[in-house]
Amino acid sequence: MYSERIPPALAGKVMSAGDAASLFRTGMIIGMSGFTRAGDAKAIPRALAERARSEALRFTVITGASLGNDSDGLMAEAGLLARRMPFQVDGTLRRKINAGEVMFIDQHLSETAEQLRNGTPGAIDIAVIEAAAITSEGIIPTMSVGNSASFVEQAGMIVIELNASVPMALAGLHDIYLPQGRPGRQPIPLTSPEQRIGTRAIPFDPARIAAIVVTDMPDSPSSVLPPDDETKAIAGHVIRFLEAEVAAGRMGEELAPLQAGIGTIANAVLHGLTQSSFRNLTMFSEVLQDSAIELLDSGQLRFASASSITLSPAMNEKFMRNLDHYRSRIVLRPQEISNHPELVRRLGIIALNTALEFDLYGNVNSTHVGGTHMMNGIGGSGDFARNGQLSIFVTKAAAKSGDISSVVPMVSHVDHTEHDVDVLVTEFGLADLRGLAPRERAPLIIEHCAHPDYRPALRDYFARACRAGGHTPHLLPEALSWHERYKNDKTMRGH
Amino acid sequence: MYSERIPPALAGKVMSAGDAASLFRTGMIIGMSGFTRAGDAKAIPRALAERARSEALRFTVITGASLGNDSDGLMAEAGLLARRMPFQVDGTLRRKINAGEVMFIDQHLSETAEQLRNGTPGAIDIAVIEAAAITSEGIIPTMSVGNSASFVEQAGMIVIELNASVPMALAGLHDIYLPQGRPGRQPIPLTSPEQRIGTRAIPFDPARIAAIVVTDMPDSPSSVLPPDDETKAIAGHVIRFLEAEVAAGRMGEELAPLQAGIGTIANAVLHGLTQSSFRNLTMFSEVLQDSAIELLDSGQLRFASASSITLSPAMNEKFMRNLDHYRSRIVLRPQEISNHPELVRRLGIIALNTALEFDLYGNVNSTHVGGTHMMNGIGGSGDFARNGQLSIFVTKAAAKSGDISSVVPMVSHVDHTEHDVDVLVTEFGLADLRGLAPRERAPLIIEHCAHPDYRPALRDYFARACRAGGHTPHLLPEALSWHERYKNDKTMRGH
Repeated sequence: MYSERIPPALAGKVMSAGDAASLFRTGMIIGMSGFTRAGDAKAIPRALAERARSEALRFTVITGASLGNDSDGLMAEAGLLARRMPFQVDGTLRRKINAGEVMFIDQHLSETAEQLRNGTPGAIDIAVIEAAAITSEGIIPTMSVGNSASFVEQAGMIVIELNASVPMALAGLHDIYLPQGRPGRQPIPLTSPEQRIGTRAIPFDPARIAAIVVTDMPDSPSSVLPPDDETKAIAGHVIRFLEAEVAAGRMGEELAPLQAGIGTIANAVLHGLTQSSFRNLTMFSEVLQDSAIELLDSGQLRFASASSITLSPAMNEKFMRNLDHYRSRIVLRPQEISNHPELVRRLGIIALNTALEFDLYGNVNSTHVGGTHMMNGIGGSGDFARNGQLSIFVTKAAAKSGDISSVVPMVSHVDHTEHDVDVLVTEFGLADLRGLAPRERAPLIIEHCAHPDYRPALRDYFARACRAGGHTPHLLPEALSWHERYKNDKTMRGH
Repeated sequence: MYSERIPPALAGKVMSAGDAASLFRTGMIIGMSGFTRAGDAKAIPRALAERARSEALRFTVITGASLGNDSDGLMAEAGLLARRMPFQVDGTLRRKINAGEVMFIDQHLSETAEQLRNGTPGAIDIAVIEAAAITSEGIIPTMSVGNSASFVEQAGMIVIELNASVPMALAGLHDIYLPQGRPGRQPIPLTSPEQRIGTRAIPFDPARIAAIVVTDMPDSPSSVLPPDDETKAIAGHVIRFLEAEVAAGRMGEELAPLQAGIGTIANAVLHGLTQSSFRNLTMFSEVLQDSAIELLDSGQLRFASASSITLSPAMNEKFMRNLDHYRSRIVLRPQEISNHPELVRRLGIIALNTALEFDLYGNVNSTHVGGTHMMNGIGGSGDFARNGQLSIFVTKAAAKSGDISSVVPMVSHVDHTEHDVDVLVTEFGLADLRGLAPRERAPLIIEHCAHPDYRPALRDYFARACRAGGHTPHLLPEALSWHERYKNDKTMRGH
């Protein structure tokens, strides 16, 4: 029964998704819950796409991060999306972004809430928030917080998707704190990952609740692949590096709080930690995947703070079955807090993110295939890589059966500059770039990280570039030629 | 008389620069005071260069930022510098960096102290600190703080350059606070530019004072050029933009605290503010130039926080003559604090920095001429551009009599990605990029910022790149061809 999930005074706001969708007018700016396909609005995107069959509708859609349930694809296909920010992972939407049909604003995930507070891109007209319940404390989110608290604070109207399939016992999993306005903003009082600094629910103005739509759709399951030989090798290099940091006295045995980006490789590295001797670990991350639950279960992870949880079906079932256990070991925060520069710097995060490619000097491309085509977005990687204590980027050394080298002379797009990259890792090894000048970085990256098939060509490029001179030696006419060669010949080999 | 500037117990440590230089052994890591050529160690670099005439000496030299008095040039020429970080502006040193003879580690200026605390690049052997005095409170710095407090905290030996030419009344100008170690680090309690959170002097262990060298050399004067028609036009665009922000209700009339990078253009923009109607302004910057004093004198600037002051000779004389007046309106902090991500984000800084070039999508190159040759370094621009509320980059639209366009299809080196760049300004106009996708940014940048001579070629490139597709359209074989053309033909014209 959904009625126990809402206060009686709001019962009159319950309506169908179709009726709720009629509240939306073309040109509106919509803030939707959802972060890494967890806790996303599910019914309204569908109902809006349905409405768009018979009517011209165009919106700016802002989320926490990626939506699941094909929502971005349905909205993109229906032509609903004039503008979309700050992150996405959908194939259909990706095609429309790269065709210039959807204006995509790719943002550091900690910054969207600040920009909304400053009036960019404009006032939120409607917030669409998935909730487990509405109680006297406020709106209880589901498996993510994302930007939902900011949307609720700012939106003229609030539409709740009340998901009756999630346990009400999610209440207490969340910690809602938003920085104040300026001037006069005070320090964020958080000094450890497990600290609670806010409220258990999102405060809201009942007068702005325009509709409550009851749903029972589950989150899309995690699509992360299991570890393979290469990701296991990457995990091994990272773990040995961290062990050496402890041995050198640069960190305690509990390390520093860990952040891990979403995806197969980062998940595999964390999974690898279950085979390590590390204990009493903490996470201060934006998303928790299966590996975080494994580490909690193994007793090695003491506490995990994030903005969302995205799990495989089996792990999700386990999580829900043991919610009381996990609720004391996990907290979900607004992404402005999970990724906040102030906290990332203060806590001294070890940041672990995935690169699409990196270059001889340690610049990283996380987003653009061939320098032009958006894959997903920068996400929170920059929030953590810039301000963390240690910034590690991982990738497999080659892609497309070896025809693409992940180590190139110059990246075709820069998301993270060499200043923000401390350690690079592939299945072949690890390059510790800390304190090194560009000319010292290149040989380490070539010999430790590049696929052996590509090392001779990288060495040759570097040697010739050094003869041409410069702090960061390059031969500009050749610098991006590997990408062009792949485009024309479907391989980077033969350079 | 210098004797009143040091406690009697340390009188026995006074010696010549030559004798003090004999304490240094090859291979040492040396931390030197000095930031934007202010408050730099002056006698020891000379004495070390002298010693190197007869002896092989190689050091790692870490400073706050740039040194004056030709110190970097003398040390580089003498072959003393094996490694140098985190910033420099010297012509001789620049040549050696670009020839690969000095390993230069170009860093975000807020990060050097954190890296030292973490043991990269190793323990500081000797700190060389210019001081106005040593009192019961500690070491009183001169016209900069930079990384001096960190060097003093960490160094095995401390060498003081006691500059008898600076007034002892500098005492009280500084506020020394360093973040604690981790875990358990507490929030930095600063919530406004004028707040004092630390001590007036650098605490030190008297047992580690190895030498005191008495000097009277002045800081090198500021080399900033006076405003010209182009920098005045840039200032006008910035001021009208800020006025519009106030009119739109996005900021109060006192704006947000201002940061301005070093150099002629940033100085000209601040100078331009003296002609504006803004009042009650504050600065939270890394360096104060003549323009900051002008704004204090005009009554428009209420308070200025920075890590150093570098002035023209006339302005310096005025500053010293009215020290009591300025001391209540200026505070100098460690650069870890002046540039700290926590504070830059909390205070909502308006960041104003200079670009060498920028591209169609708003990526900025601040450092590398032709993508390879280091000019000065990234300095603090990234600290402010990433974490500030508004990130503005300024440059003249063309250089070398118009043969170099500052707006290019793709920058040859990325220091600041499009995520960290809100507004671009040249003498021709201003492009407000907030909330815009790459394909929306390019036309604004071309039509508002590029030199008219280069607009047709930029429009042509952008149109053809859009036809090739992508979120960030580029034609890789051409993307860096403007730089190559300049290298070969000494002009970018004719594209």
